[in-house]
Amino acid sequence: MSVTAAKGFTAAGVAAGIKANGNPDLALVVNTGPRAAAAGVFTANRVKAAPVLWSEQVLKGGQVTAVVLNSGGANACTGPLGFQDTHATAEKAAEVLGHSASEVAVCSTGLIGVPLPMDRLLPGVESAAAELSAHGGEKAAIAIRTTDTVHKTAVYEGEGWTVGGMAKGAGMLAPGLATMLAVLTTDADVDAPGLDAALRAATAVTFDRIDSDGCMSTNDTVLLLASGAAGIAPPQADFDAAVAAVCADLARQLIADAEGASKDIRIEVTGAATEEEAVAVARTIARNNLLKCAIHGEDPNWGRVLSAIGTTTAVFDPDELNVAINGVWVCKKGAVGEDRDLVDMRYRQVDITADLAAGGARAVVWTNDLTADYVHENSAYSS
Amino acid sequence: MSVTAAKGFTAAGVAAGIKANGNPDLALVVNTGPRAAAAGVFTANRVKAAPVLWSEQVLKGGQVTAVVLNSGGANACTGPLGFQDTHATAEKAAEVLGHSASEVAVCSTGLIGVPLPMDRLLPGVESAAAELSAHGGEKAAIAIRTTDTVHKTAVYEGEGWTVGGMAKGAGMLAPGLATMLAVLTTDADVDAPGLDAALRAATAVTFDRIDSDGCMSTNDTVLLLASGAAGIAPPQADFDAAVAAVCADLARQLIADAEGASKDIRIEVTGAATEEEAVAVARTIARNNLLKCAIHGEDPNWGRVLSAIGTTTAVFDPDELNVAINGVWVCKKGAVGEDRDLVDMRYRQVDITADLAAGGARAVVWTNDLTADYVHENSAYSS
Repeated sequence: MSVTAAKGFTAAGVAAGIKANGNPDLALVVNTGPRAAAAGVFTANRVKAAPVLWSEQVLKGGQVTAVVLNSGGANACTGPLGFQDTHATAEKAAEVLGHSASEVAVCSTGLIGVPLPMDRLLPGVESAAAELSAHGGEKAAIAIRTTDTVHKTAVYEGEGWTVGGMAKGAGMLAPGLATMLAVLTTDADVDAPGLDAALRAATAVTFDRIDSDGCMSTNDTVLLLASGAAGIAPPQADFDAAVAAVCADLARQLIADAEGASKDIRIEVTGAATEEEAVAVARTIARNNLLKCAIHGEDPNWGRVLSAIGTTTAVFDPDELNVAINGVWVCKKGAVGEDRDLVDMRYRQVDITADLAAGGARAVVWTNDLTADYVHENSAYSS
Repeated sequence: MSVTAAKGFTAAGVAAGIKANGNPDLALVVNTGPRAAAAGVFTANRVKAAPVLWSEQVLKGGQVTAVVLNSGGANACTGPLGFQDTHATAEKAAEVLGHSASEVAVCSTGLIGVPLPMDRLLPGVESAAAELSAHGGEKAAIAIRTTDTVHKTAVYEGEGWTVGGMAKGAGMLAPGLATMLAVLTTDADVDAPGLDAALRAATAVTFDRIDSDGCMSTNDTVLLLASGAAGIAPPQADFDAAVAAVCADLARQLIADAEGASKDIRIEVTGAATEEEAVAVARTIARNNLLKCAIHGEDPNWGRVLSAIGTTTAVFDPDELNVAINGVWVCKKGAVGEDRDLVDMRYRQVDITADLAAGGARAVVWTNDLTADYVHENSAYSS
């Protein structure tokens, strides 16, 4: 279903030869209208890939008729020539589709610091355009994979309207504002400001709250395109909820497929003075390598949770902290609580609750364990 | 040589039975005078172990006659009873040595959240006192080891005076103000303010600039004791240099023995607007798991350096960044530089230079690679 679940969109995914192994590596998503409203959020990393710099400009116009996405190369840290390559990609798509390049967004993902093979990418845009189909969403989702072991899609069915989407991302997964590559589409009749509001609210509590390995990408992009083809303008609150649901679904799929991970860890911080502090504490816990190793070893090592909390500036009293792992309050009032042997950690999901006992705010951040497989996947070859 | 290299100190290390495996686990360092000046720096972690809370109070008096150190248990997150245990440890040492407990510092290291076996620790203090010797420094250094594979000692010989020291630390190694446990001694005739100035200046550029795994301990303590037994008061600048040399030596030994590490990575940030920003950028690079994996795989993946720099708030222009790995400028002006195949990464030390091209300040932070052995060591059992 993916990006073609909503009416008014076609898509395709092809093997353009950007990847040496011949796997699909180029996707095209086209909005066939009647409208072409769009919103986007991008990485907070100050080192931004050429396609991010390009697409940020495109999105300022609030109109996107097509998105070209390639895996097999991030086109990041490639200098002025890299930006020219992104520009040429948008021009090629515009030429083939009869659109304006200023309404074509471009996304790239793969190794940083390597120029894209434009002699293969540009013909790939033509091939993809020739294969565009209202059933092409699945192929597009497959073509944007890098180290992803599965492709990720999600769909929300409204009352006569639909929000669908695809995403990729398995490593360098600690989005700041957006994450990795994701394209959502809807046939609801929503204008660019409405899309923007829904997308920003949704990413703030979904993609922004997954943190697999603490490493922020140069290429994170999340786009939301509206065709208006359903001819229905849902209430903004309903639309917001739909976009949030699709983003949450895709975000969970990213965590579930994170490089080398054997555990999905849900970290809930409660009793915080503010939601901002709850997020900061949860993220600090999520980035503690020693804790991530302990969880991998199915060891409810709550001391590592406390030592992580202690490095934050959030409001709390060390002697009032409480920590539960999978529902067992192993730490009470900053000291030994219930018997740690009661904690059952055999399953893939692990729930950590840290109660700061300092207020009424809360937040959830998802992360993964740290494994030898993660080390292997990120040391054995460049990615 | 260790803490007994300087005149006016005795030390001992014994197996008190705190560790289940029967290895040495209790050390005692005694200042036999004539003076007993002291300074200390402690972890910046807000979750502080009981011995840190105790020793911070002791050091306020500027006088330390003895230090009791135990491995096999951190006595952190152990509540009011844990603090009573530390107090009882100081009282026992004071009683056996004929000192005041208010001048006895206590350091503990090991698993967080487990009460110390005081029925074995207190007799251990008596055993250690009975074995005190002017040649006991080596045994003391051995007794404070946890996952350290070697004990760490260092000595600086001044003109008629000496600074010696010992340290332990192999994991949870990202000190904020101090690191892990280290005790330095000197027979120079220096008062507490002079010791404090020398120690703070030294730790700020040594222990504070090693960051093996980004995880800050609850127990970090560095103490500097002066006996005055040499009867010489060196110029403060000479003394500062000596303390800095011993701290730098010990800090390098900690990195060289970091859990599971196969590489020692020296990260030098140059061209920064301020030294503070240079340190912040170097530390952010040092904590990037993807880069640490790449270095483990001997892959000069400079894109991961740039993506890390991009997450900081330091002054720089992404298009002016330069990065060298082992002397090869693989990234110039934010894009591809010299051939990455020229980088030889076969040796244990790897040098990364990141030039921000934004000013004249610089700083060096040391870290390690991320390996499957690190994951194994920190997931297979509690530590």
